[in-house]
Amino acid sequence: MEKKKWTVGVDLGGTSIKMAFIDETGAIIDKWEIGTDLTDNGANITRDIANSLDEQLQKHAHAKEEIIGIGMGAPGFINFEDGSVFEAVNIGWKNFPLKAALEKATALPVAVDNDANLAALGEMWKGAGEGAIDLICITLGTGVGAGVIINGQIAHGIGGMAGEIGHITAVSEGGYLCNCGRTGCLETVTSATAIKRMALKDYQNHPESKLYAIYQDKQDVTTKDVFDAAKEEDPFALSIVDEVARYLGEALSNVAILLNPQKIVIGGGVSLAGETLLKPVDHYIKAFTLPGVYEGLELCKATLGNDAGVIGGAWLINKQLKRI
Amino acid sequence: MEKKKWTVGVDLGGTSIKMAFIDETGAIIDKWEIGTDLTDNGANITRDIANSLDEQLQKHAHAKEEIIGIGMGAPGFINFEDGSVFEAVNIGWKNFPLKAALEKATALPVAVDNDANLAALGEMWKGAGEGAIDLICITLGTGVGAGVIINGQIAHGIGGMAGEIGHITAVSEGGYLCNCGRTGCLETVTSATAIKRMALKDYQNHPESKLYAIYQDKQDVTTKDVFDAAKEEDPFALSIVDEVARYLGEALSNVAILLNPQKIVIGGGVSLAGETLLKPVDHYIKAFTLPGVYEGLELCKATLGNDAGVIGGAWLINKQLKRI
Repeated sequence: MEKKKWTVGVDLGGTSIKMAFIDETGAIIDKWEIGTDLTDNGANITRDIANSLDEQLQKHAHAKEEIIGIGMGAPGFINFEDGSVFEAVNIGWKNFPLKAALEKATALPVAVDNDANLAALGEMWKGAGEGAIDLICITLGTGVGAGVIINGQIAHGIGGMAGEIGHITAVSEGGYLCNCGRTGCLETVTSATAIKRMALKDYQNHPESKLYAIYQDKQDVTTKDVFDAAKEEDPFALSIVDEVARYLGEALSNVAILLNPQKIVIGGGVSLAGETLLKPVDHYIKAFTLPGVYEGLELCKATLGNDAGVIGGAWLINKQLKRI
Repeated sequence: MEKKKWTVGVDLGGTSIKMAFIDETGAIIDKWEIGTDLTDNGANITRDIANSLDEQLQKHAHAKEEIIGIGMGAPGFINFEDGSVFEAVNIGWKNFPLKAALEKATALPVAVDNDANLAALGEMWKGAGEGAIDLICITLGTGVGAGVIINGQIAHGIGGMAGEIGHITAVSEGGYLCNCGRTGCLETVTSATAIKRMALKDYQNHPESKLYAIYQDKQDVTTKDVFDAAKEEDPFALSIVDEVARYLGEALSNVAILLNPQKIVIGGGVSLAGETLLKPVDHYIKAFTLPGVYEGLELCKATLGNDAGVIGGAWLINKQLKRI
């Protein structure tokens, strides 16, 4: 009997590299992490991945010939023609021939995309987006980004910059300064950083709020504190969540009207708030979108967490080799 | 020598049906129109198309066997699984099996999409979008709609409603009532109807404006009047164009940030204003988008006019039969 063929998913971050063996159904056989070696502008990373892969194959007594290939996500701008990385600031790569280097180091076929897109593909294949071919996966973390999938394919755009939803203008005038240099971007009102800023800016005017007490206690308020307080109906916390939900709902409505997606999947640290966030966001999407678009749309929380990237990598190499 | 194979493009409207023979390169061999018979809820339309096709084939002494197939656009919501029309209000169709009926009437393969999407495909193939695989074609007319092409494919969305860009929220609060029942939609500030309304609403406060004189003369001001006056630097007309351009520029920036398209093609009656509109829109896109997204983007005027639909139809049937 033919041994089941595996793929390798690799998700490169600034501190660690997540890796996994994944079977043809998208199930994780085993997963592990290695540290990211940032010395020499990341020159050793592909060698480290190759060595770690060999070790793990040995551990599983699995022959390399039974590996289909590697799908890898990198944080940065990818050149999709040759799988090189234009720039990955956190890694130190500039015009780094990632696909070619990793293929050479491993003697396996390699497919490359950016990490946000792979996470979206992972959610599409095995996570919250399962079954949908038109979906948006938005990640609300320190920043705000998205993977856009249309007709089952990632939308990269002409320069690989599609999905920069965090920089959609949410506040037309008088908005807060964004890292990108402009003001009022969606990121400035819906990221974890923004939610924390909203709480810290105004807690003093709400001595009745739990957030006031929390600040007195630890001289800080976290995004989690805001959502926890909102869950307990704290009016100040609820007002922050409502403001965030309104901005997010309006932006996602505009995306939905343009693309009529089946699913919008919300991931990242902020999504851990669950229904406390999703319910008001859904309310505003309903208010700002067309009835027919709203009817076809499901708003849901990402389910794969940190595994989304490696699973998306597995999907990508399977797709590239026309195995799915 | 094999006679060149032709396709037939059909673009159905509420008063006339545009038809054309189109060769493999996308060039129009001949085009003609027939009236749209709205009696019996449009039951005779596919028969009329078949008869007209036979007549024209005879006129050109071209055998039906040398026709590849028919690509047809209809104004309404299409069921892409079977090529039927859920509803086309202006025609009278409801759950009408368009593809099946036209295939039966003509004994040719038929591909169907909505008219806005076919116009976008036409511009992609032979018009302003030539060479781009990621593009948005927005039509500014009485209403505002768009065809969205990603990776060379139309984005339909789960319910065929993708591209309803006219209903993106442009004015969050206090906006004008839209036909869709909501307020502040992009259509309410950028359609021909909206531009005319802006002029009529405020001309009385601008007795120095050419538009004031025009109103005195003919008791009306058209969208064309507004752009003509703006071209001659009339301050009131310029202020209207600037307002329209700002709303359009901000909305298109958000679209561009999400999809990083190579081209945004502006068509429809309002696009006849040319640079008088495109220049300020480009200014606002630059202001509201990311530098990398702006660099990759070309804003241009549609070039195919009324031929876009039939040419898009020809592309669609060629594509469906895997000839291009």
